[in-house]
Amino acid sequence: MPRDGGPARLRLQQAALDLYAERGFDQVTTAEIAARAGVTERTFYRHFADKREVLFDGEKPLRDALAAGVADAPEGLAPLPTVLWTLRTVVVPVLEGNRAFSEPRHRVIAATPALRERDQAKQAVLTEALATALRDRGASESTASLAANVGMAAFGHATIAWLDHPDRSLDELIREAFEDLHTLTVPLAAVDDLV
Amino acid sequence: MPRDGGPARLRLQQAALDLYAERGFDQVTTAEIAARAGVTERTFYRHFADKREVLFDGEKPLRDALAAGVADAPEGLAPLPTVLWTLRTVVVPVLEGNRAFSEPRHRVIAATPALRERDQAKQAVLTEALATALRDRGASESTASLAANVGMAAFGHATIAWLDHPDRSLDELIREAFEDLHTLTVPLAAVDDLV
Repeated sequence: MPRDGGPARLRLQQAALDLYAERGFDQVTTAEIAARAGVTERTFYRHFADKREVLFDGEKPLRDALAAGVADAPEGLAPLPTVLWTLRTVVVPVLEGNRAFSEPRHRVIAATPALRERDQAKQAVLTEALATALRDRGASESTASLAANVGMAAFGHATIAWLDHPDRSLDELIREAFEDLHTLTVPLAAVDDLV
Repeated sequence: MPRDGGPARLRLQQAALDLYAERGFDQVTTAEIAARAGVTERTFYRHFADKREVLFDGEKPLRDALAAGVADAPEGLAPLPTVLWTLRTVVVPVLEGNRAFSEPRHRVIAATPALRERDQAKQAVLTEALATALRDRGASESTASLAANVGMAAFGHATIAWLDHPDRSLDELIREAFEDLHTLTVPLAAVDDLV
């Protein structure tokens, strides 16, 4: 999502997103993105490695913000609640505050296999950052990894629901996803008698 | 994992895995895989699109097996328990029965970014297949998606733990991951007072 960087960088991101939404990712060239943003193609490549990366600018800042959020979470909070707390206080405000960009961005990614692959790689990086930060707070290796993986899965679920429900807030949907997560796990013990 | 197909196909898969484990995925050519398997490079390409796909042969059969497993799960079983039941009865026996191949395969994937991306895409396909099958059993769109996403996250966690604990069975680790999942969700309600 657009955040830091000069106006050229932000204009390039918006131009890319608009063009991908209009014509599909595969039909758009970096020259066209640059032209729409009013800069040269050379400027495009000064800011982004390729036309995929233009939509994944926020990975490192987001990774750092997640790690800082986990470190700052209230003392004594258990691992999965720490993930929920971090998502609600660090990630949700950014996405909610920039819905005009983040919503079409999610739609373009969902519709484009090459971008979905990149997004999955990003989720994996963020999951690993969360797990590391949870270990640094004292969670065991196994608990940290499970809480990070499952928390990110619930978060991914909530962001997709957000696209389908423009009337609802992401914060509400994330709370709901984690509540549902608890409800879903209650009848698990029954499986032992069936396998 | 090697399953159907003639001996040339199985030999190619084993040769590729051995070479990737010995020298690293990036250092191996399809010509070398073919030579190690005692076939021509042309035969390699008759069986696989490229040197990445040689390790992802089982995607379609596994997707179909997951869908069939969900459909066959005991009547009345709730969505997440259905996922656990399906993993334990359909997927675990295949992976456990073929640990000599599946374990080094997981290791090579974990060590190779290009293979990790492919593996993440495969997980996404399997998650979608699970969600569709859960909907066909009557789960709501939202519950089906959350149960599939979270169930696959717990499964991924268990398969990684399996690599690190050669003395433990995958079935045991999957049961443990889902049990831990329930434990992790218990203190979630505390977050509402903190955000």
